Amino acid sequence: MTSQPRRIAGFALRGLAAAIALGLAAGASAAGKPVTWDDIANDQSSTGDVLQYGLGVKAQRYSPLKKLNPATVKNLVPAWSFSFGGEKQRGQEGQAIVHDGTVYVTASYSRFYALDARTGQKKWEYEHRLPDDIRPCCDVVNRGPAIYGNKVFFGTLDAGIVALDKDTGKVVWKEKFEDHKIGYTMTGAPTLVKDRTTGRVLLIHGSSGDEFGVVGRLYARDPDTGDEVWMRPFVEGHIGRLNGKDSTPTGNPKAPSWPDDASSPTGKVEAWSHGGGAPWQSASFDIENNMVVIGAGNPAPWNGWKRTKPGDDPRNWESLFTSGQAYVDAGTGELKGFYQHTPNDAWDFSGNNEIILFEYKDPKTGRQVKAGAHADRNGFFFVTDRSKLADGSGYPNKPTALIAAYPFVDGINWAKGFDLKTGKPIEPDGADSLRPPLPKDGAEKGEAKFVSPPFLGAKNWNPMSYSPDTGLFYIAGNEWAEDYWTENLTYKAGSAYLGQGFRIKKLFEDHVGVIEALDPVTGKVAWKVKEKFPMWSGTLTTAGGLVFTGTGDGFVKALDARTGKELWKFQTGAGIVAAPITWEQDGEQYVGIHSGYGGAVPLWGGDMAALTKQLQQGGSYWVFKLPKDAASR
Amino acid sequence: MTSQPRRIAGFALRGLAAAIALGLAAGASAAGKPVTWDDIANDQSSTGDVLQYGLGVKAQRYSPLKKLNPATVKNLVPAWSFSFGGEKQRGQEGQAIVHDGTVYVTASYSRFYALDARTGQKKWEYEHRLPDDIRPCCDVVNRGPAIYGNKVFFGTLDAGIVALDKDTGKVVWKEKFEDHKIGYTMTGAPTLVKDRTTGRVLLIHGSSGDEFGVVGRLYARDPDTGDEVWMRPFVEGHIGRLNGKDSTPTGNPKAPSWPDDASSPTGKVEAWSHGGGAPWQSASFDIENNMVVIGAGNPAPWNGWKRTKPGDDPRNWESLFTSGQAYVDAGTGELKGFYQHTPNDAWDFSGNNEIILFEYKDPKTGRQVKAGAHADRNGFFFVTDRSKLADGSGYPNKPTALIAAYPFVDGINWAKGFDLKTGKPIEPDGADSLRPPLPKDGAEKGEAKFVSPPFLGAKNWNPMSYSPDTGLFYIAGNEWAEDYWTENLTYKAGSAYLGQGFRIKKLFEDHVGVIEALDPVTGKVAWKVKEKFPMWSGTLTTAGGLVFTGTGDGFVKALDARTGKELWKFQTGAGIVAAPITWEQDGEQYVGIHSGYGGAVPLWGGDMAALTKQLQQGGSYWVFKLPKDAASR
Repeated sequence: MTSQPRRIAGFALRGLAAAIALGLAAGASAAGKPVTWDDIANDQSSTGDVLQYGLGVKAQRYSPLKKLNPATVKNLVPAWSFSFGGEKQRGQEGQAIVHDGTVYVTASYSRFYALDARTGQKKWEYEHRLPDDIRPCCDVVNRGPAIYGNKVFFGTLDAGIVALDKDTGKVVWKEKFEDHKIGYTMTGAPTLVKDRTTGRVLLIHGSSGDEFGVVGRLYARDPDTGDEVWMRPFVEGHIGRLNGKDSTPTGNPKAPSWPDDASSPTGKVEAWSHGGGAPWQSASFDIENNMVVIGAGNPAPWNGWKRTKPGDDPRNWESLFTSGQAYVDAGTGELKGFYQHTPNDAWDFSGNNEIILFEYKDPKTGRQVKAGAHADRNGFFFVTDRSKLADGSGYPNKPTALIAAYPFVDGINWAKGFDLKTGKPIEPDGADSLRPPLPKDGAEKGEAKFVSPPFLGAKNWNPMSYSPDTGLFYIAGNEWAEDYWTENLTYKAGSAYLGQGFRIKKLFEDHVGVIEALDPVTGKVAWKVKEKFPMWSGTLTTAGGLVFTGTGDGFVKALDARTGKELWKFQTGAGIVAAPITWEQDGEQYVGIHSGYGGAVPLWGGDMAALTKQLQQGGSYWVFKLPKDAASR
Repeated sequence: MTSQPRRIAGFALRGLAAAIALGLAAGASAAGKPVTWDDIANDQSSTGDVLQYGLGVKAQRYSPLKKLNPATVKNLVPAWSFSFGGEKQRGQEGQAIVHDGTVYVTASYSRFYALDARTGQKKWEYEHRLPDDIRPCCDVVNRGPAIYGNKVFFGTLDAGIVALDKDTGKVVWKEKFEDHKIGYTMTGAPTLVKDRTTGRVLLIHGSSGDEFGVVGRLYARDPDTGDEVWMRPFVEGHIGRLNGKDSTPTGNPKAPSWPDDASSPTGKVEAWSHGGGAPWQSASFDIENNMVVIGAGNPAPWNGWKRTKPGDDPRNWESLFTSGQAYVDAGTGELKGFYQHTPNDAWDFSGNNEIILFEYKDPKTGRQVKAGAHADRNGFFFVTDRSKLADGSGYPNKPTALIAAYPFVDGINWAKGFDLKTGKPIEPDGADSLRPPLPKDGAEKGEAKFVSPPFLGAKNWNPMSYSPDTGLFYIAGNEWAEDYWTENLTYKAGSAYLGQGFRIKKLFEDHVGVIEALDPVTGKVAWKVKEKFPMWSGTLTTAGGLVFTGTGDGFVKALDARTGKELWKFQTGAGIVAAPITWEQDGEQYVGIHSGYGGAVPLWGGDMAALTKQLQQGGSYWVFKLPKDAASR
């Protein structure tokens, strides 16, 4: 009689203990380690994770890891690969993030995967259901996720942003922020900032769609709910929002940088209503100045005469606030400063490329300068003064923030350089101007100009990196050109809104791509290597003295950061158009990158699209590591 | 005056020299090294290439390479990967071949690539233009190419076979051998044989399509022109061809193994006209006996009552020459011998799996036996006597060629074993019979039987390997079952012709797949390891004492050939359903395999299709190597 209850109790206890143990294990797995703002703020110096696009709020893409270095990188080997699956490939642009043993990676067609960082095993996947009528200009790409708390975030091609539980992949919230049918979409990676004034952490993202004549907008959201906190449009005179209400116009409410048109209901030319400026890449965050720093896209349409008073010089009509870098107050969404890389941009140079925040000592004054660096599609590398941009630079009666503008590719012909006093480009005048002229009366298109760089840019979206050790920026760029002419045009919702025709051309026989190191203080190119195919991958640099990147013909490469010498490469089998990352795990250094060719070049690239037809599509994430026993060989 | 002519002559000479040099270089590259019959006959012992499906005419999938072995395999690392590209993935079944520094690899959707074996760089690609109405039963797969002379060959899903210049990928000839609209297709790898009587080298290939009610045919072609030399159908009484003319009927012209039907224009039951037997896998070649050795497919329809005289025992109607192994004279295409693994196959067990030719010493007599080994979908491992099969075994008054039939998976219930005197299976009788009964009057389907193995087989197409060192066969199999019932049916051209319904089921909670080593002399399983997902990859074994294979969850694995211990694995990111190869190059040992999930399981696999939904599609070729400096670590 006594033994039976004991046995039952024993079973019950064992059962309870098992349930608790299981519950704890499941709980631990389900809850994971949340990501705090401090984690993100320290991202650049922490080695065990990669929490933000750009590997830190300054977007320097620099890792303090040293296990991989010129002596050991020869021993770097693949650790695992993951295929995104399905009958879906196209361009695999993007940068993964890594947290708590999980790699979070987005893929073409708005897909998201959580992978075990050690094994590559899939933890969950989310495939966004896309409507048939999305309008991404430049392939069905996605440039990466963001992470905060227990959620991960990414943009979708139907102009949406989605928050998923980072441990389960379940949707927490979804926001469709604009109408994809008129051309809005989202391909950029969101980023996190913390507003100093309210102490709130905000999710920042932009919109894409300039080629369809939409007004570019930057958003700040509550990461917990997806609710909009503020919105800032980048066409002068358009009105922002704050806490659900109209806030302020962007710049001058009369938008003097866009022509008036008395016959129009808005009083402005048609283009003003569809003026572009989309901030489609990712924001950096200037913590000291509480500024969201982001590039604004090209004005729409591409044809600059549509944004110029008839008979006037286009340079008198700047199409603000497009094709430049914007400093936006994190708390209110006010546009505090602006530097325009290409006034009245007639070439779709856009201004989106990342702005890396860095500091250097002015060799003349010895003063520490807090600067922004930006390699523009227009071929110039801009160094700007963050303090001035946070203090109204770009507005009337404020000095330009421009410190320097260096050409970083060969063949630039649209401008001879920049005037550092005015911050303006020095364009060839009159007949030498490379602004393509209007069609002659009765003609459908204008005389073609041979322009370099072409609209695909001396560098496109693919982010550069900066090493505080070498003081150099590592840029993956392209040296090419285009035939470029104007065409007649009227706005039609959902149709391309360009007013330009073009064909991308070769500039040099032996190469299109270049990988180079540029000194931001002198503008000198420390080294430069050539690549046969266009470069569409970002770079990563490390304290180990390496630069990682990927090439269209499928290689992941490691170069010596001081000399550019190729130290290691691996053939992944599909073209690479993504941004590498590195992290440390179990005492070993890992490197990760997407493989899968696509993006704008095969769609828009003319002769370069033909050149790259031989490159392989794919759809994989690759992870390499330096095995422990190889770290000292 | 004298200097100018000299200079001109100098230029002319240099120009000529340059032209000659270029011409020679181009010629050398264009011509490459042709493949001779001796190269193919010696394929198993040569280490620098892989020239035939099966790694030699005996199809043993054994390599004499030893650099990779249980001590060194931990250092095996990826050398390169190649993405097949396009928006096309699905099942990447197949085996590559390697010759003269080039890997020749076929992919889903009838694609063919030539890759530099050292770097993975694409030399050329051929994408077959497929009509929209192809009818592959079991995914758009291709199992590999053949090579001979300066050409490579592969089958296409529209029932064609194509010869390409191995150095340029240009089409040399194309033959569409049957009508794809009624269900003919080709997924198997062709192989080469040399007819002893004429000294001619012939290209051997079969047809697929049993699920659509076509008559399976085996072809021999002139590899130079594609012209048919002979054709052999595998339904008894159908007529073969030789040199463009009708040759002989297959077996008895009256086809006594199929019922008569006086009301039919042929005098035979409908099924006889659509009787299946497709030899859709690849032939081995018994050089001593000049025999093409190949498995014949299932009879059509699957429903055995359609091939049984009403009211009679199905076992009296064997549906020859289906679901068995066929020995066909290389010179004439005569069917010289046959062993039927499943008489009147009611379960789509088919008989296609490869027949490996091997020799062993009979422990009782001490006599060397020249044998064939075959692991059937029906769950039994058959050892047959090649001498008897070359000498009429399977025809009336000839002894059976069966030496042994061992169950190689757990759970087999359709037969208790085999009678070695008659060569026939011992099926449960009467109510215990697992031949699913006809529907009762007025019913659309019959009572379901729970049958194991299911029609997808204890082992499917994925080839096993044999090590002369260990004397063991290495089989990747599956332990599973099905609910299986008859359905009513009439033949309709181009429609599925089954007469059966089914649902694949789990048999064990912890696994579906197994990898095992079987002793062909004793029938004992030396070791067996379990895999969660169905095994659909072939195996490869080496003198180094290793077994290589791939798993549905993306791993390439190396096991110890003597113990089955897992020694190494690598995650390729997509499910593997292909056959590995190995070769030596620049003193280093390489291993190659496809990655990309698909095949029959996700299409037909019922509960197992559901299980494998989580596996990733892909489309890559992976090459690993043991670096020189790691061979001794």
